[in-house]
Amino acid sequence: MRVTQRVRRILSNYESDTPGTKTNLARILMHGRLAGTGKMVILPVDQGFEHGPARSFAPNPDAYDPHYLFRLAIDAGLNAYAAPLGALEAGADSFAGAVPLILKLNSANTLASAAIGEDQAITASVEDALRLGCSAIGFTIYPGAESTYEMFEEIRELALEAKDVGLAVVIWAYPRGAMSKKGETAIDVVTYSAHMACLLGAHIIKVKLPTAHIEQDEARKVYESEHIDISTLTRRVAHVVQCCFAGRRMVVFSGGGKKGVEGIYEDARAIRDGGGNGSIIGRNSFQRPRDEALALLSNLVGIYQGKA
Amino acid sequence: MRVTQRVRRILSNYESDTPGTKTNLARILMHGRLAGTGKMVILPVDQGFEHGPARSFAPNPDAYDPHYLFRLAIDAGLNAYAAPLGALEAGADSFAGAVPLILKLNSANTLASAAIGEDQAITASVEDALRLGCSAIGFTIYPGAESTYEMFEEIRELALEAKDVGLAVVIWAYPRGAMSKKGETAIDVVTYSAHMACLLGAHIIKVKLPTAHIEQDEARKVYESEHIDISTLTRRVAHVVQCCFAGRRMVVFSGGGKKGVEGIYEDARAIRDGGGNGSIIGRNSFQRPRDEALALLSNLVGIYQGKA
Amino acid sequence: MRVTQRVRRILSNYESDTPGTKTNLARILMHGRLAGTGKMVILPVDQGFEHGPARSFAPNPDAYDPHYLFRLAIDAGLNAYAAPLGALEAGADSFAGAVPLILKLNSANTLASAAIGEDQAITASVEDALRLGCSAIGFTIYPGAESTYEMFEEIRELALEAKDVGLAVVIWAYPRGAMSKKGETAIDVVTYSAHMACLLGAHIIKVKLPTAHIEQDEARKVYESEHIDISTLTRRVAHVVQCCFAGRRMVVFSGGGKKGVEGIYEDARAIRDGGGNGSIIGRNSFQRPRDEALALLSNLVGIYQGKA
Amino acid sequence: MRVTQRVRRILSNYESDTPGTKTNLARILMHGRLAGTGKMVILPVDQGFEHGPARSFAPNPDAYDPHYLFRLAIDAGLNAYAAPLGALEAGADSFAGAVPLILKLNSANTLASAAIGEDQAITASVEDALRLGCSAIGFTIYPGAESTYEMFEEIRELALEAKDVGLAVVIWAYPRGAMSKKGETAIDVVTYSAHMACLLGAHIIKVKLPTAHIEQDEARKVYESEHIDISTLTRRVAHVVQCCFAGRRMVVFSGGGKKGVEGIYEDARAIRDGGGNGSIIGRNSFQRPRDEALALLSNLVGIYQGKA
Amino acid sequence: MRVTQRVRRILSNYESDTPGTKTNLARILMHGRLAGTGKMVILPVDQGFEHGPARSFAPNPDAYDPHYLFRLAIDAGLNAYAAPLGALEAGADSFAGAVPLILKLNSANTLASAAIGEDQAITASVEDALRLGCSAIGFTIYPGAESTYEMFEEIRELALEAKDVGLAVVIWAYPRGAMSKKGETAIDVVTYSAHMACLLGAHIIKVKLPTAHIEQDEARKVYESEHIDISTLTRRVAHVVQCCFAGRRMVVFSGGGKKGVEGIYEDARAIRDGGGNGSIIGRNSFQRPRDEALALLSNLVGIYQGKA
Repeated sequence: MRVTQRVRRILSNYESDTPGTKTNLARILMHGRLAGTGKMVILPVDQGFEHGPARSFAPNPDAYDPHYLFRLAIDAGLNAYAAPLGALEAGADSFAGAVPLILKLNSANTLASAAIGEDQAITASVEDALRLGCSAIGFTIYPGAESTYEMFEEIRELALEAKDVGLAVVIWAYPRGAMSKKGETAIDVVTYSAHMACLLGAHIIKVKLPTAHIEQDEARKVYESEHIDISTLTRRVAHVVQCCFAGRRMVVFSGGGKKGVEGIYEDARAIRDGGGNGSIIGRNSFQRPRDEALALLSNLVGIYQGKA
Repeated sequence: MRVTQRVRRILSNYESDTPGTKTNLARILMHGRLAGTGKMVILPVDQGFEHGPARSFAPNPDAYDPHYLFRLAIDAGLNAYAAPLGALEAGADSFAGAVPLILKLNSANTLASAAIGEDQAITASVEDALRLGCSAIGFTIYPGAESTYEMFEEIRELALEAKDVGLAVVIWAYPRGAMSKKGETAIDVVTYSAHMACLLGAHIIKVKLPTAHIEQDEARKVYESEHIDISTLTRRVAHVVQCCFAGRRMVVFSGGGKKGVEGIYEDARAIRDGGGNGSIIGRNSFQRPRDEALALLSNLVGIYQGKA
Repeated sequence: MRVTQRVRRILSNYESDTPGTKTNLARILMHGRLAGTGKMVILPVDQGFEHGPARSFAPNPDAYDPHYLFRLAIDAGLNAYAAPLGALEAGADSFAGAVPLILKLNSANTLASAAIGEDQAITASVEDALRLGCSAIGFTIYPGAESTYEMFEEIRELALEAKDVGLAVVIWAYPRGAMSKKGETAIDVVTYSAHMACLLGAHIIKVKLPTAHIEQDEARKVYESEHIDISTLTRRVAHVVQCCFAGRRMVVFSGGGKKGVEGIYEDARAIRDGGGNGSIIGRNSFQRPRDEALALLSNLVGIYQGKA
Repeated sequence: MRVTQRVRRILSNYESDTPGTKTNLARILMHGRLAGTGKMVILPVDQGFEHGPARSFAPNPDAYDPHYLFRLAIDAGLNAYAAPLGALEAGADSFAGAVPLILKLNSANTLASAAIGEDQAITASVEDALRLGCSAIGFTIYPGAESTYEMFEEIRELALEAKDVGLAVVIWAYPRGAMSKKGETAIDVVTYSAHMACLLGAHIIKVKLPTAHIEQDEARKVYESEHIDISTLTRRVAHVVQCCFAGRRMVVFSGGGKKGVEGIYEDARAIRDGGGNGSIIGRNSFQRPRDEALALLSNLVGIYQGKA
Repeated sequence: MRVTQRVRRILSNYESDTPGTKTNLARILMHGRLAGTGKMVILPVDQGFEHGPARSFAPNPDAYDPHYLFRLAIDAGLNAYAAPLGALEAGADSFAGAVPLILKLNSANTLASAAIGEDQAITASVEDALRLGCSAIGFTIYPGAESTYEMFEEIRELALEAKDVGLAVVIWAYPRGAMSKKGETAIDVVTYSAHMACLLGAHIIKVKLPTAHIEQDEARKVYESEHIDISTLTRRVAHVVQCCFAGRRMVVFSGGGKKGVEGIYEDARAIRDGGGNGSIIGRNSFQRPRDEALALLSNLVGIYQGKA
């Protein structure tokens, strides 16, 4: 399939990148059922690290097998599959070339987090991404945490290294720390975090869907004086897109914990209508039985194709 | 001896590794009396570091001599011998090629631990492993300790370095820190730790045999709602194997402190019947007189051969 | 346009630098409407990092688009445009050669600062500056903060690296920490900070306009005994210039928060008359509508041309 | 002089080392009046660092001159001279080849120790040892101190570097920190420390002569149940030798502060009879007038030659 | 001018150094009015960093210009000029070859020191010293401060790097921290600090003139029992020289704050008569009007020439 006009327009926004990196962005954008549309649905599976294997895979025990997850991403026609080192090592050869891979380079875990606070360990490297045939690296930042600046300095180095070898960079921007629990999904905090991810040089930014809550007093003044419309989810998505260099950087949204399918579809329509670039959907897909998951993902893809 | 079908099947699970690393895994799996069976019994001796020489070797003073330990592993027909730098330096030439070696790269000690807390010092390097003719590096992680993320970042770097030169990676996963004493062998904690070792890129994982205790509230809910069977040691071993990428990564079990031989045999049968890959047995072998130790190891090997 | 006598005299002050670095200093001094005068007006945009996107760009939403900011600097005929990594990546190709670029290598943010204290994260590198075609790197130091020495050691390394590849070095000297709020713009503190930036090897120093307040008791004694004239803004600027190696290093001034245009013009006249090298003006330009901003910048340039 | 059988037997214990490192061990063992016996007397002078020049050298002011110390080691026919960087730099050329040198790579000092706690600074490097023609590096570890693991990681790196260039490694094992003052020379603590030095890859271990005190409860149980004989100094030395890989690693003993010559001779006889490899004797030699010192060292050498 | 016998004798004390480093020591010793005498007067100007520009230069405003300071050192016929990076960059080309330069590699400042404690930042590198044509690097250590060991490790690395490229190493030994204010110039503390600088590999040591105060109890015992004569400044200088490897390392003295010329001359005579190698004189020279400063320096040089 030829690279579409729409994808070529998106690629042109990454004007400082090498053809190597643009090729890897194109691989993600030209793969699966959404190929060429500029929209993406990505399967991320780092819950084993974050919450342990039973909490992640017991609801659908087939998912204990890393091959199952590769197959799910492939059979659902998704754009990419993102996972930590070991999980990709266990399938990267069997499924070589079958789906673009994003190697998640850092991870937290609930066993350690009580003792450590908000931070993540670097658990893989750019060299690993290359030897496993990945198209991108993934990295989580915690804007607002005590570890923020160290995380920024880590991704600065890893992103430069990735770009030097033609890989794309996906930043998971998850605010936490110096804010209320509610503030972690506040519109001002989510947009601030997404904007910093852009400034750090990300090609694709992942954030949670924002609420209409405003966390920072100084920000609230501006939202009110400038009448920024954050009344609906669609408007909030549009505002996030605006804060990602007026749409020059792609942004995808996660939906959080397990929930009903209708909620997922509504979210996706808001992402689509607000100009977002797609969904990144983990537990809501791999924790369901395979048939249910494929049906859900098919519907989700359909929404981004404009069919619902 | 030709590499057996069973071993070839196991090696195929390490699909992202180089032929160099697979060769070293094969060396371990094709050595000794369990050669070709896919099962392993490994002799680890890091007690000198952990508890000092008298507590380790006075019960069987021949073991003060590093050569004695090499000979014990060789004469018992074990798959590998694991020890710290100096202990391998003292025998690697005399016994070159006689038994696969695992160089333990980090160590704790009870003299310092009161002052330092849960952590280990890196006391050897991948370059040492190469010059001593080792087949693998060994590394301990403490999931749950304050040092967890630093240890993860250390093994990330060392594992990549090891794989680059064709060595295999064995991770000792010993949870501690942010949990109760009982929680260190809880089924949810052990499986979580083993799973993280897999995600960190280990080829072989070493854990303690888990109890039926569940430490984490969030995990307990899932164990109950999903009816995960952890009622017998055999079932718990099977659950650990499941959490190691559904059996795509090898897992061996340690038995803890010195105990009666019948207990050791029962443990081994449960490991075997649950699908585990074998035993790693230190103090229970080298602290016994040589004849007793050889008899015990012979019986242990027999159990993995299906003879008891 | 030929390099003017005035610029050649300025370049001769950078006597230890390579022709490469002098060329990049000349690019900044010979660009735009002030080309050849030895004066500069620079557009810096790091507010997205410092205060978030809405507080920075909502007053003039066109500025969400990185291209708008490039165009503003180009159309106003400014000497250079300074911004963080992602913002330059988003336009460096479209506007290649159209305006000298300064890559800001470190940044703070208000989301994290409550948790972290006075510090900045390094968010870009000299290699990034080269691949984006920049003429200089920019770096903030916080003299007086707990992080002072680490920041000094960071810029030591980055400045040497920059000079080795022919880039110029701009240091933002922003005192804070071990002083009163008023002390951050005190004449003794600002001159001390500017002088240290010179000693650290900066080619261009950026400071805030100083007040007549004196913060340090030891300094006050000297200001009084030696009758240093700090009675007017013009005299204070002249004293800053004196403290920058008696004028051998260029110093530009920022005006702080948004304010009326007359205040900005008065400041500029004092900078000019005191022998300062120009203005660095961010929020006061890009937060205004484009026409207003261009008018303001045109007047500012006029002042440095001696027209007002 | 040909390398003796006894020395060749000792060298064969260093079976993993290169001919380069064995050559340097041979240089130490084949030098001076004890050449070929497998016994050593070494002159160490790091008291200038540890206690300052006046406390070290005022009792015998000739010793302020580094050449005096070289000459003392040479004229007494000792096996090696160990000192910090500057002290070796000041004589290494004048006395090139006249006595094997051990460059001490780390040092503590009493000026700083109150402010810092138990630690040492690295004050020289392997490259220095090479350029000064040394045969070995020396490094102090403090088992039990908060700095233990960092010191272990430092020597891990330095020892590997030293072995890579054919130098030998001498570890000073000085327990302190998490123990009573009395515990620093307790038999269980000294043997534990010596054993860890072996495991860290030392060729020669230096410890203090141990007392019959047992510091650790867990160790005491074993000493009692296994009836380890620590009743005389000779038996304790033998137990230290046993804990150094059953004699496969050489161990030398220091005598502590200044004391009477008869005490020194008694210690040496116990070291000799217990199978230790010799004495390392600083203040007791260089703080005496040269004639006295030479007489004392001559007697000491005589004891190791079996003459007294 | 031919290298004198006296200088050749001094150079021979640096027996482990390369001809490159000896050449740079010779450049310093063979330059200016004291050329060939083995004595030195050095101009150091790091007060801008330490106390800020006004406190340093307002008493003699010509000194704001870095060229003034170069000229002062040259016109007074001094042996060397020592300053931080930026100050040398501003004149190293204009005065290339006119006076040996010492690049000061670390600096403290009073703005930050309240927040940071006793430490210095590394603000220049050996590579900078080479590109600026310097003969030596300068480095301050704070024996007794919490930062002592880190500073030792920094100079270890920098000194090795400097010697590798043929530069000389000057250590400013300024005790502070774990001692009384009076103790900072106590004879035991100053000699201990100077001795450690020698052990760290310095070629030239700079200390303050010591008082007869003894700070450490353990040292006092030795000073009394060994009857070390510290009754006059001349005797104390001689004792410092003794502690610098019995005169094998050169030591120069600073006089502290601004004071009367007679006091300066008396100090110099004591330095000369005690066998010290000269003076390092900053504020007392550059804060005076040029004529006065030249007269003072001329007299000082005269004293070292034995004329007064």
